[in-house]
Amino acid sequence: MTKRAVVLLSGGLDSATTAAIARSEGFELFALTVDYGQRHKHELAAAERVARALSVRRHLVAAVDLSRFGGSALTDRIDVPKDRPVDEMASGIPVTYVPARNTVLLSLALGWAETLGAGDLFVGVNAVDYSGYPDCRPEFLDKFAELANLATKAAVEGTLRFVLHAPLIDMTKAQIIRRGMELGVDYRLTHTCYDPDERGTACGRCDACRLRLRGFTEAGFSDPLDYV
Amino acid sequence: MTKRAVVLLSGGLDSATTAAIARSEGFELFALTVDYGQRHKHELAAAERVARALSVRRHLVAAVDLSRFGGSALTDRIDVPKDRPVDEMASGIPVTYVPARNTVLLSLALGWAETLGAGDLFVGVNAVDYSGYPDCRPEFLDKFAELANLATKAAVEGTLRFVLHAPLIDMTKAQIIRRGMELGVDYRLTHTCYDPDERGTACGRCDACRLRLRGFTEAGFSDPLDYV
Repeated sequence: MTKRAVVLLSGGLDSATTAAIARSEGFELFALTVDYGQRHKHELAAAERVARALSVRRHLVAAVDLSRFGGSALTDRIDVPKDRPVDEMASGIPVTYVPARNTVLLSLALGWAETLGAGDLFVGVNAVDYSGYPDCRPEFLDKFAELANLATKAAVEGTLRFVLHAPLIDMTKAQIIRRGMELGVDYRLTHTCYDPDERGTACGRCDACRLRLRGFTEAGFSDPLDYV
Repeated sequence: MTKRAVVLLSGGLDSATTAAIARSEGFELFALTVDYGQRHKHELAAAERVARALSVRRHLVAAVDLSRFGGSALTDRIDVPKDRPVDEMASGIPVTYVPARNTVLLSLALGWAETLGAGDLFVGVNAVDYSGYPDCRPEFLDKFAELANLATKAAVEGTLRFVLHAPLIDMTKAQIIRRGMELGVDYRLTHTCYDPDERGTACGRCDACRLRLRGFTEAGFSDPLDYV
């Protein structure tokens, strides 16, 4: 039987590449998109497009409303910073930090994985360009894997051993894009912008757009996305 | 300033007692109830009654639909076992196990706690009567606390240190009930049954009812709840 993997799929460039890597390693993909009360739905539409393009076995969208907690530019009315030089983004924890986001996302992935009999979880976190997020660090991921193997019936009974894969963890954005291009990822389907217009067109000026655009330039490709 | 605590409040006997203990320790309470697609809403109504009775500062109900994952008698159509002797319940992991439930609940509590500036999380898990659940064990809770202190901006920046309180962890049901009675918990407001009738009246025969009833008997009190 093909081994199953649960992949957290946001619809962004990193998670699309991560899913393509998981598929290239022979896993049967179960994609989980968590709708945590983001400000716009363009990310969810992108996740659907990417899931379809990768022929995942199943794509599940789970809603959990983190916006009611407050505390982040991605779910609150705080302004998204614009035109910041990429080198300044690394200083401190970004205002776009969502409290405990990756802990929540991975917990949901774990619950679904246990039900599916999937021991492998893939997540597109990256410690290079997002060094400001505490829950994108290797020590966080290692600890979550330890937790997963204590938290679940399948692990305790020995029928599953959970492994957390973060294939992008040490890659620069340019390296991620090069790897994705090798694997045939269609980056036109992805959505990266924190602050798109009504139609979903990327602003090109928020931290996420600037990192993405610099990544394409450094990788030697042009970004197939349209920008405002 | 009074120290804030987030308390996971299901509406059951254990979480009501846990919240009363947290209040008796001087914390200002923020109660989080997670609606994870349970089969009935009587638990949610009980959580509201208990929150009101304990004068919590805020009661938040967060919805996350674990039932779409499948795999448990609490969210699926699997039959709830009836009339099992209490001594048999401890063997193996119960069919009422929900994959990664406590990991998901604690992750949500952590996200809200960080936003509130609350370093203390209270959870009513118990390793005596629920030894079959992997995520009710002390080693799971210790690991989650380690994770919380790696996962969050507040912990990394040193403004909060997360402490996970599980005051019931080593108590029998009878000890829990005695402690709650001392603290004035009104157990008539709580809901325990896995399989109530339409009006929410407890069955008295599922594992949860049987544990509760035996606890009251051993504690030397009569259960104020009505049973079918």
